[in-house]
Amino acid sequence: MSNNKDNLSMADLSAVINEEDRAGLVSALKSKLHSLAGQHTDVLEKLSPNVRKRVEFLREIQSQHDELEAKFFEERAALEAKYQKLYQPLYTKRYEIVNGTVEIDGATNEAAMDQEGDQAAEDKGVPDFWLIAMKNNDVLAEEITERDEGALKYLKDIKWCRIDDPKGFKLEFFFDPNPHFKNTVLTKTYHMIDEDEPILEKAIGTEIEWYPGKCLTQKLLKKKPKKGSKNAKPITKTEDCESFFNFFNPPQVPEDDEDIDEDTV
Amino acid sequence: MSNNKDNLSMADLSAVINEEDRAGLVSALKSKLHSLAGQHTDVLEKLSPNVRKRVEFLREIQSQHDELEAKFFEERAALEAKYQKLYQPLYTKRYEIVNGTVEIDGATNEAAMDQEGDQAAEDKGVPDFWLIAMKNNDVLAEEITERDEGALKYLKDIKWCRIDDPKGFKLEFFFDPNPHFKNTVLTKTYHMIDEDEPILEKAIGTEIEWYPGKCLTQKLLKKKPKKGSKNAKPITKTEDCESFFNFFNPPQVPEDDEDIDEDTV
Repeated sequence: MSNNKDNLSMADLSAVINEEDRAGLVSALKSKLHSLAGQHTDVLEKLSPNVRKRVEFLREIQSQHDELEAKFFEERAALEAKYQKLYQPLYTKRYEIVNGTVEIDGATNEAAMDQEGDQAAEDKGVPDFWLIAMKNNDVLAEEITERDEGALKYLKDIKWCRIDDPKGFKLEFFFDPNPHFKNTVLTKTYHMIDEDEPILEKAIGTEIEWYPGKCLTQKLLKKKPKKGSKNAKPITKTEDCESFFNFFNPPQVPEDDEDIDEDTV
Repeated sequence: MSNNKDNLSMADLSAVINEEDRAGLVSALKSKLHSLAGQHTDVLEKLSPNVRKRVEFLREIQSQHDELEAKFFEERAALEAKYQKLYQPLYTKRYEIVNGTVEIDGATNEAAMDQEGDQAAEDKGVPDFWLIAMKNNDVLAEEITERDEGALKYLKDIKWCRIDDPKGFKLEFFFDPNPHFKNTVLTKTYHMIDEDEPILEKAIGTEIEWYPGKCLTQKLLKKKPKKGSKNAKPITKTEDCESFFNFFNPPQVPEDDEDIDEDTV
């Protein structure tokens, strides 16, 4: 019914995505036994009585598998939640130090430094922590333009959290007040088709409320009018450009019917 | 250094892939603190003494996080192994019933049926189980051509297993002797860049030893010679064609420098 190349990619991709948490393709196939043995009784009726009995037995095996699997997902979720809780105090401490809301032992506080006439009045927390961290990530570094850096200096925290309805997860980027946009939080939410089949359904980003003339995802092009042209004024035109902040305006996940290049997976 | 579109896809993709098992982007970024605070002492030296002390403190926090995370990976692997062991007897039972090596209670064995003059002599196990299962999977169904079905009738089991060196996983397709190819097992192995960052490095498939004229991934084209042409014989030409079995000849994972369509993620 649609483009085969598309689906080859998706098949490989879903196998890769699943590898960490389930028996991949095998599970995907097994689960289809339900439809064979359950709803489609017409298919069953075409089978000889012996084969039908065997399929019904396989269906019982599948139920036992599903019960086990449900317990596995439960135990895994509990394990993840346990560690998220253990990580949390570390994340909080990091936030406090990075943003200078809490001072560590051994570091002189800014007021004292100031009295000594030092340059330290600006040394609150760890300046540009997140910008530097992001630029140290090979993948992210290539998304960050020089123009973006000015805005990313105001980034004060990044949080990740699971969402339940619909299933998925959310990234939150917290910003100090800055000259580029009004938002204090930019989020990107990933909706998954199924909790246990982490295939991306769609990604939704915050719409950024840029201040006039401060948009980083567009460039203003000024063209001089042609000599002898009737229009005296220069022509201005905005044009989309590369920017980290395009991350919040993600492309739509393609529909089945759209063309995808097979080589991408 | 390379195509930005490529990397936007990868960024989104890695976030999606990571969602089931770690705090995604946040973790990826945090881990970069090491390089900031550790190896690149020159970066540290440029910082004021107070900021440097804070970064060193953040580094300690990161170490605590890494220790916790290592324990998490350990516990998760143990959990997965526990359930793989619990699933295994069910998979074995399924194999036996599907392939008729063991009969279930209540089903008459073939010999008896035969004596009754029934058509059941061919009713060993569950004929075409895997072919039907695969055709019930929306993604796989589109990969299976009518020509493929003849060969997939000989598929008797699919197994998944983790591999350790290099990290990744393997799918094994077990076939009965069949008229299409010599191989009894076709495998596809996925190598991951890193155990805990399940990003595909490469996928390797078994080379299929087709019997002469039985290759399903190529079609033989016969062209009649043009009238009045010097060659009397028809021209034959093989051409790649769609087939499920292309699954075992996967495209190479593209290098950084190759073009990828942004819309694919």
